[in-house]
Amino acid sequence: MGPVKVFGSAVFANAARVMACLEEVGVEYEVVEVDYMAKEHKGFKPLARNPFGQIPAFQDGDIMLFESRAIAKYVLRKHAKSAQDDLLRESNREEAAMVDMWTEVEAHHYFPAMATIFYECVVYPARLGTVPDKKIVDESLERLRKVLDVYEAHLSKAKSMFLAGDFFSFADLNHFPFTFHIMTATPHASLFDEYPHVKAWWERLMERPSLKKISAHMEIKP
Amino acid sequence: MGPVKVFGSAVFANAARVMACLEEVGVEYEVVEVDYMAKEHKGFKPLARNPFGQIPAFQDGDIMLFESRAIAKYVLRKHAKSAQDDLLRESNREEAAMVDMWTEVEAHHYFPAMATIFYECVVYPARLGTVPDKKIVDESLERLRKVLDVYEAHLSKAKSMFLAGDFFSFADLNHFPFTFHIMTATPHASLFDEYPHVKAWWERLMERPSLKKISAHMEIKP
Repeated sequence: MGPVKVFGSAVFANAARVMACLEEVGVEYEVVEVDYMAKEHKGFKPLARNPFGQIPAFQDGDIMLFESRAIAKYVLRKHAKSAQDDLLRESNREEAAMVDMWTEVEAHHYFPAMATIFYECVVYPARLGTVPDKKIVDESLERLRKVLDVYEAHLSKAKSMFLAGDFFSFADLNHFPFTFHIMTATPHASLFDEYPHVKAWWERLMERPSLKKISAHMEIKP
Repeated sequence: MGPVKVFGSAVFANAARVMACLEEVGVEYEVVEVDYMAKEHKGFKPLARNPFGQIPAFQDGDIMLFESRAIAKYVLRKHAKSAQDDLLRESNREEAAMVDMWTEVEAHHYFPAMATIFYECVVYPARLGTVPDKKIVDESLERLRKVLDVYEAHLSKAKSMFLAGDFFSFADLNHFPFTFHIMTATPHASLFDEYPHVKAWWERLMERPSLKKISAHMEIKP
């Protein structure tokens, strides 16, 4: 049996999430390119891999998965070396609850605001030739500011290095792909300067070898 | 130490999710009413419980949580009686991956379409006196149809009783609150008649004593 396969390259934020987890646990993997622009991902084969026609999908022998957060958890559960190394912290109920809570905050508050800005400023212009809609971007920036207010208060009050406590976890890692794109591919990186604890947290995240390595493959080519 | 507390009543879909899990594991709980219309939930005290000013929040002794999916997992992990009863199936890596995958599908595909219809048809008219915007509702129904196409194919192909396999899981349960509202409080219940396997699955869900019990407290009062 060869290495596990990730369908979709790291330039896709949700594929980058999966690869960052694979790097964290030190598992070899093969990246299978999906020609998104040619809509190959909506064709029959990738549709069998991901019925929603999205990136990524994942294969580990007979196991086929889609939904990046579910794939990531599968990888982390299978390969965590110790309770201390486990990014999900599932052997400690209270720590696991904190990891889950901030993972859900990312999914339902942080990601929706971030993703709208990224799509409007980068993806649609590249793919559809559009110009960013200032109203949509401004509304999302305002929404993101309200979310970052909560993060800033949490990180300064908790005096923790990371979101779920004094340990790097899946909750932190989930913020990586879209934050990286906002920081490097949009004109809105300076937003984080208004949130010193959030910015320091982000800089701690980017010290992780796994995230450094994946980010080198995430550059958006115009 | 008294029973655990859920802040927000079952009429709020995300509070209903938490209560359904508490019923599943047979844990006593106290419901603390939050006067949403009076914006109490945006006031100082509930803000300390849920920094996003949303419902629900949850308390188990010293542990305070928000984000309904994270609360639900905490409850299920703490009180699952056996591996067979565990709605998360975390003792079986492959089953857990299937539970996670369909839980994420609910969160990122099913819920966004469902919630938009519910808010447009029920919540905004009740709270703001608006009339449902036909264009928004129609777009969400179209989006929901595409999602239900995937569910119908999955449930008919897999020949499974439930989404993650032949066992009721957290993935199924997550669909309960918003589907119940769409089925009982909007004019769009008939949409499910087009999807016989999905409808049969929904009817199986509604046979669960936990969901029957909570649904009796979910009626939207005009």
